[in-house]
Amino acid sequence: MKKWDIAVIPGDGIGIEVTPEAIRVLDTIADIHGGISFQYKEYPWSCQYYLEHGVMMPEDGLQQLEQSDAVFLGAVGDPKLVPDHVSLWGLLVNIRRGFEQVINVRPAKQMSGIDSPLVDPKGFDFTVVRENSEGEYSEVGGRIHSGEDETVIQSAIFTRRGVTRTMDYAFELAKTRRGHVTSATKSNGLVHSMPFWDEVFQDISKNYNSIETQSIHIDALSAYLVSKPHAFDVIVASNLFGDILTDIGAAIMGSIGIAPAANINLNGKYPSMFEPVHGSAPDIVGKGIANPIGQIWTAKMMLDHLGEQEMGTLLLDSIEEVIEKGIKTPDIGGTSSTTEVTDHILNTLTLRA
Amino acid sequence: MKKWDIAVIPGDGIGIEVTPEAIRVLDTIADIHGGISFQYKEYPWSCQYYLEHGVMMPEDGLQQLEQSDAVFLGAVGDPKLVPDHVSLWGLLVNIRRGFEQVINVRPAKQMSGIDSPLVDPKGFDFTVVRENSEGEYSEVGGRIHSGEDETVIQSAIFTRRGVTRTMDYAFELAKTRRGHVTSATKSNGLVHSMPFWDEVFQDISKNYNSIETQSIHIDALSAYLVSKPHAFDVIVASNLFGDILTDIGAAIMGSIGIAPAANINLNGKYPSMFEPVHGSAPDIVGKGIANPIGQIWTAKMMLDHLGEQEMGTLLLDSIEEVIEKGIKTPDIGGTSSTTEVTDHILNTLTLRA
Ligand SMILES: CC(C)[C@H](C(=O)O)[C@@H](O)C(=O)O
Ligand SMILES: CC(C)[C@H](C(=O)O)[C@@H](O)C(=O)O
Repeated sequence: MKKWDIAVIPGDGIGIEVTPEAIRVLDTIADIHGGISFQYKEYPWSCQYYLEHGVMMPEDGLQQLEQSDAVFLGAVGDPKLVPDHVSLWGLLVNIRRGFEQVINVRPAKQMSGIDSPLVDPKGFDFTVVRENSEGEYSEVGGRIHSGEDETVIQSAIFTRRGVTRTMDYAFELAKTRRGHVTSATKSNGLVHSMPFWDEVFQDISKNYNSIETQSIHIDALSAYLVSKPHAFDVIVASNLFGDILTDIGAAIMGSIGIAPAANINLNGKYPSMFEPVHGSAPDIVGKGIANPIGQIWTAKMMLDHLGEQEMGTLLLDSIEEVIEKGIKTPDIGGTSSTTEVTDHILNTLTLRA
Repeated sequence: MKKWDIAVIPGDGIGIEVTPEAIRVLDTIADIHGGISFQYKEYPWSCQYYLEHGVMMPEDGLQQLEQSDAVFLGAVGDPKLVPDHVSLWGLLVNIRRGFEQVINVRPAKQMSGIDSPLVDPKGFDFTVVRENSEGEYSEVGGRIHSGEDETVIQSAIFTRRGVTRTMDYAFELAKTRRGHVTSATKSNGLVHSMPFWDEVFQDISKNYNSIETQSIHIDALSAYLVSKPHAFDVIVASNLFGDILTDIGAAIMGSIGIAPAANINLNGKYPSMFEPVHGSAPDIVGKGIANPIGQIWTAKMMLDHLGEQEMGTLLLDSIEEVIEKGIKTPDIGGTSSTTEVTDHILNTLTLRA
């Protein structure tokens, strides 16, 4: 019996509502499999925790999580309680960086049963591989002068190591998919960072002769995700560009409520972290209508990462079946509750197994 | 008789094809009006010019343009001849900065007769006011070390003056529209520049009590332009964010071939510049199918800027009428040529006048 230790951080808002749903799913998966089990340890780190302790997580928080096989996170942030940059950098970004989760992987695909806002989504199916540790999200910068003369500098920092490992990951992923990598650039506007990004992309593509490549400026690429998303397979992007592209990806899927994400530690030193793309959505908290699919699909990414791809595939198939049957929360045009959607996924899993 | 001196830079690719079309339109407008005329001076600055002279425009280029009432530009860039950042910074960005065209204005609206890729565009009609002189597009930065350790820094620089004038422009514009301004931020990721951006936005909004405001992170905002573009009126954005949002705007309109833009000089010291959002599109050059509407709609923005709003409105109405009749280039689902579309616009103008 393989036992996986999962550190669970429900976080804020609907994070608290959807995380237990995904755990019900994981337990059913374990039952079906027979040879694996999950042991959860829950951490109450959140904006509420901040109000009580003055920090989003304790000083030794990373050490507490370190022995787990994966971190499973719901959503962080509640701007009414704590400013976003405090809550998000204090918890989410802190874990991403502390655990060297240098890659963020976010798939986007047309799901039958969910109406895309696009007239003709043509079965798009792409994955964004996002640099997750440096780039535009740097704390380097500051202010000078005040009043009318106030000037602010914000520096993006890219290292060859950081860019290389991200691109390697993207190319390796493309090998297992349709063999195509698109690089998101803006070398015509950002004249230091992006020409460098392009150079590394060219260098690395030489190691992957079987992979087709192209570079597209972020402005045009954002537009293409609307006009021809089916043209993309793997997209590799910087921290900021990846952030933007994956939200567009969620939008064309029909709801940010279904989009999953994985923060990958590559060197095996620390656990990886799995958290959906959506945030804590304070506006729908307590109504029982939060879409659990983002969190459940994220559990599928965790299963894949733990080596349980067969279970991962079973789970995604079950999710799709339930959606196709019309068992959906309101954000994707249904009338079902959070719990009802999960219940149907559990039944489908059991029937399919 | 008011005489306007227009400096014309057709540039590269389809810029050379669509600029003369827009000039035919301007001449017809002058005839209809009776009290204005346009005098054009054409400049051959382009990638071809670069190959012959080693620069995109002569050293005294700005002086040559300086006395004109407006610069009317087609498109710049031909990556097969000159790297994009060389051609674009050498000409386009050079003029934007040299002439202190600190604001870039780009409208996006659903046009009846053009199929949006969105199922339900709900008559969206918004304008992006983009900071056009600083921010992420700065030449500050560089590289250190080589090989595995190579590290690149790219600094974004925001000044209170630069941000303030952009936001003021946006608020003033909102007064003439539906009274709503959305600020594109990313203060949860870019922890120096964007909290500053948000502060200035809050300060300025205090001067405009009648205007409703909201701040939305660029990732979510990009997604909203897909899921609910009708919810926006004026959007104010930094240089890079504005670049991305306006390409999404063009995409949901149905083609980048129709989107217009204006680079505005605020202090009256230098001419403003009018150039469509699309680039030189080398792939369709010489086929006679380039959509002239981006350039012609850009001429409408120039007319507005010169104080000829009545003519501007007549022109946009005529464009819409022609599109509704189905006289369209292939990019928006028609079979007409560049010239045919313009001919119909000329006829419609004359009939409506
Ligand atoms: C070519 C490039 C520098 C330019 C920009 O990003 O400003 C273009 O994309 C635009 O939007 O006019
Ligand atoms: C909250 C924020 C820092 C974060 C990011 O931009 O990385 C979020 O948007 C995400 O995509 O996970």
